[in-house]
Amino acid sequence: MHAFKGNLIWTEEPGRFRTIKDGYLLIEDGVVAGTAEKRPSGIDITDFGSSLILPGLYDLHIHAPQYMFAGLFMDDELLQWLDRHTFPLEARFSDKDFAFDAYTAFVEDLRNSCTARASIFGTIYRESTIMLMSLLEESGLHGYVGKVSMDRNSPDILREDTDEAISEEIRFLEESSSFRNVKPIITPRFIPSCTDRLLSYLGAIAKERNLPVQTHLDENPSEVEWVRELCPGSRSYADAYDSFGLMDGRSIMAHSVWVTEEEMDLLSYHDAWVAHSPSSNMNLSSGIAPVRRFMERGIKTGLATDTAGGSSLSMFRMITDAIQASKLRWRLVDDALPPLRFSEAFYLASKGGGSFFGKAGSFEPGYAADILILEDSSKDMTVLSPELSIEEKLEFYAYRSPDRKPLAKYVEGKRVI
Amino acid sequence: MHAFKGNLIWTEEPGRFRTIKDGYLLIEDGVVAGTAEKRPSGIDITDFGSSLILPGLYDLHIHAPQYMFAGLFMDDELLQWLDRHTFPLEARFSDKDFAFDAYTAFVEDLRNSCTARASIFGTIYRESTIMLMSLLEESGLHGYVGKVSMDRNSPDILREDTDEAISEEIRFLEESSSFRNVKPIITPRFIPSCTDRLLSYLGAIAKERNLPVQTHLDENPSEVEWVRELCPGSRSYADAYDSFGLMDGRSIMAHSVWVTEEEMDLLSYHDAWVAHSPSSNMNLSSGIAPVRRFMERGIKTGLATDTAGGSSLSMFRMITDAIQASKLRWRLVDDALPPLRFSEAFYLASKGGGSFFGKAGSFEPGYAADILILEDSSKDMTVLSPELSIEEKLEFYAYRSPDRKPLAKYVEGKRVI
Repeated sequence: MHAFKGNLIWTEEPGRFRTIKDGYLLIEDGVVAGTAEKRPSGIDITDFGSSLILPGLYDLHIHAPQYMFAGLFMDDELLQWLDRHTFPLEARFSDKDFAFDAYTAFVEDLRNSCTARASIFGTIYRESTIMLMSLLEESGLHGYVGKVSMDRNSPDILREDTDEAISEEIRFLEESSSFRNVKPIITPRFIPSCTDRLLSYLGAIAKERNLPVQTHLDENPSEVEWVRELCPGSRSYADAYDSFGLMDGRSIMAHSVWVTEEEMDLLSYHDAWVAHSPSSNMNLSSGIAPVRRFMERGIKTGLATDTAGGSSLSMFRMITDAIQASKLRWRLVDDALPPLRFSEAFYLASKGGGSFFGKAGSFEPGYAADILILEDSSKDMTVLSPELSIEEKLEFYAYRSPDRKPLAKYVEGKRVI
Repeated sequence: MHAFKGNLIWTEEPGRFRTIKDGYLLIEDGVVAGTAEKRPSGIDITDFGSSLILPGLYDLHIHAPQYMFAGLFMDDELLQWLDRHTFPLEARFSDKDFAFDAYTAFVEDLRNSCTARASIFGTIYRESTIMLMSLLEESGLHGYVGKVSMDRNSPDILREDTDEAISEEIRFLEESSSFRNVKPIITPRFIPSCTDRLLSYLGAIAKERNLPVQTHLDENPSEVEWVRELCPGSRSYADAYDSFGLMDGRSIMAHSVWVTEEEMDLLSYHDAWVAHSPSSNMNLSSGIAPVRRFMERGIKTGLATDTAGGSSLSMFRMITDAIQASKLRWRLVDDALPPLRFSEAFYLASKGGGSFFGKAGSFEPGYAADILILEDSSKDMTVLSPELSIEEKLEFYAYRSPDRKPLAKYVEGKRVI
C-alpha cells in the first residue's frame, strides 16, 4: 500500500467533480484502494505538494501512422484528404525503417502526453503494426492496436486481396499475443474500403476469439452517402456493421457525427462505444456529433484525438474542443441539446472512455491506478491562482496548458513518465 | 540597409502565399525595402538558417484585464459571463497594485507571442489603463489601448456617471498623448453599457480629434435582442453605432457574428473593420461570423483573440480556429460560403488585420518591418520535415506549435524578443 498526496480531482458520474484538497490517493498492487482526507498511518506517502492528482485520460481513436502529418493538408475534406494525402502516406509504412522512425516519434509523444491508454489504428502492414505494438509495450502505455483491414477502394499499394487480408489478420493476432499491456483489436477501416466478404470474416474472427472491434461510422455526409450506395440492402451505415457482426459491447464506432435515432437504437442495443473526435470533425468539415444526445440515451461515449484528422494528441485539447463544438451545435443546429459543461467533458475523457479498457478513469476503489500528476499551471500563469478552486485550476490547465507534459504519469500503478 | 536571410513567407492578397526559399528580406529605417532571391551585396546580413521569416501578426481585439482569467468560467454564455465573472473581476483594476501585477503578466505574455500590434481594451479606470499603456510602450509592442467607457447596466463599482465618463476620457486622452508607439482609442464597451448621451459625446470626441474607435457588434443573440430593446429608434445594432458617429474607416467592430446584409452595407459604406474572434465566439456560445461573406463584400477583416472570451493569446491558434469555425459554418449553416483556406486565414491575421495599423503585415516595399523569425518546428516534430514546402512548414507550425515563442520578433525594425 502506498499513498499520493496532493489536490485530488476526479468524476464518478458526468457533471459532478469530486475533489479533496491536500488529500490522499491510496494505491495497492496497481489498483486504487481509496481516497482519504486525513493522513493514513503506517504507509509510504509521496507528497506532490500543490499538484493536481487526477485519473489518466483515454483516447478512443488514433491513427498512429498519420501522426507524422498531423496539422498538415488541412484544406481538404475527408474523402479528398484520404485519397490525396492519407493513403499515399500510409503506404510508406511498408518500409520498416520509415515505420520505425515515425512510430518511435509517435509513441514518445503519446508517452509524454496525458493519455494513459488508447485504441489505435496501424496500417495494413502486419510487420510495422507489430513494431508499433512493441514500441507501445516498451513505453509502459496500455491499449489496443489494430492491423488495418482494407481490400477495396484504395490505391493498389494500400489494398490487400481478401484472402490475404484474412490470413494476415490471423497471423497478426498470433504475433501480437505475446504483449502484456497492448492488445490486438479487429480493425476494418470502414465500409467503403472493405468488401462484404472481408467484413463477414472479421466479424466471425472477433466473435470466435472474443476480440474488440474499432472502425468508423457516419463521419462525413459524403462518406455516409457513399456507404448508402455500397450497401443497398442495409437500412443504415450502422446496420451494415451490425449485419456483419461487427457491433457489440466492445466495438468502438469512431465519430458517429451523422447517426440517426434509429442508428442510436442499434448502438444502444449492442451497448457499443462512440469515440467522439471533435477536433477532427472540425478539421475535415465533418460536422458536430450530438454528444448530449448520446449521454441522454446512455450510449457509451469517450473522446478521441483522431490524429491526423485531429492535429493534436492532447486529450485536454479534446475536452475543450468537445465543449466548444457542443456550444456551436447548441447555438446553430439544435438548442434542445445543451452544451457540455467542463465537468461533463472531463468525465468523457476519463471514466467515460476509460471504461472501454476495464475499470479505468476514476478514483473509486478497485479502479486501475492510472494517475496523472499535473503541476498547477495557474501558479506561474495568473495572479488569480491563489483564489482558484481545484476544479478551476483543472479548467485553467485544460484551456491554457493542454500540451504541457505531466509531472508524472502512472498506468496500472507503474510510472510511465 | 540590412537583410535577414531565411525562408520567407507572406501574403499580399488573400489565398496566395508568396515564398522565397533561402531568400533575403531587405530592411531600411524600420521599413521593408524589398525581398530578394539572391544575396544582396554590400549590406549586413543576419542569417536565420532554415527559420521561417514572416510578417508580424495583428490582434484586433483583446481585453487586457481579462487575460488573468482566460480559460476560466467557460461554462457560461456571454451575458451571464459578464455579470458573474467579468464585471466583478474588472472592478479589481481600480486597485493599482493589483492592476500592475496583472498587466505586467499580460504584457510579458503578449511580448512573447507572435503578435506585433494589437488593439486593446483596458477598464474604466484611467490610471490603470495609462499604466497598461506604459508597460506596452516599454515592451516594444505597438498598438492602441482604450479606457473603457460605460455608464449603465453594470455593477456600481464598474460604472461611471456620464459626465465623469466624458471628463475621464478627455483626461485619458491627454495623459496618453506622450506615448510613441501605443496610442489611445475611443472605447465604448458596447451599446448596453453606454447611454445615448455618452455615445454621442464619444462619437464627437473621436471625430474632433480624429481618433479610432473600438467596440462590440452583434456578438451573441441575447445581446442583439437586448440592443433591439434599448434602441427602438435604430434600424439595427450597427445603425445605432452609426447614428452616434462611431462607425468610420478607423472603427473596429469586434465579433459581428450576427450582422445582417443591411448592417454589412453600413460596414462597407463606412469602410469599418471587423475583428473576427472565432475562439471567443465558440467559448461564449455566440456562433460563427460569416467571414467568407465579409471577404466577398470587401469588408475589412482581421483576426482577434478576444481574451478572455478567447482563452489563448496565440494568433496562430486564431488562424486555425478561424478555419475550423468556417468549416463548421459551411457544413452546418450555409454551404454557399466555402471554408477559409490556410492561406486566407493567414492573410487575415497578417496583412488583413495589420492594415488597421497602417502599412503592416506584408513584405511589400514600404511596409513596416514587423517581422517574426520562427524556428521550423517540423524539424524536431515529424519525420516528414525534409519533404515539406515552406507553406506546409508554416501550416504545421500553426496547428502543432501555436504557442511556441518566436526566435525573434521585430516591430518597425526594433527587436522586441
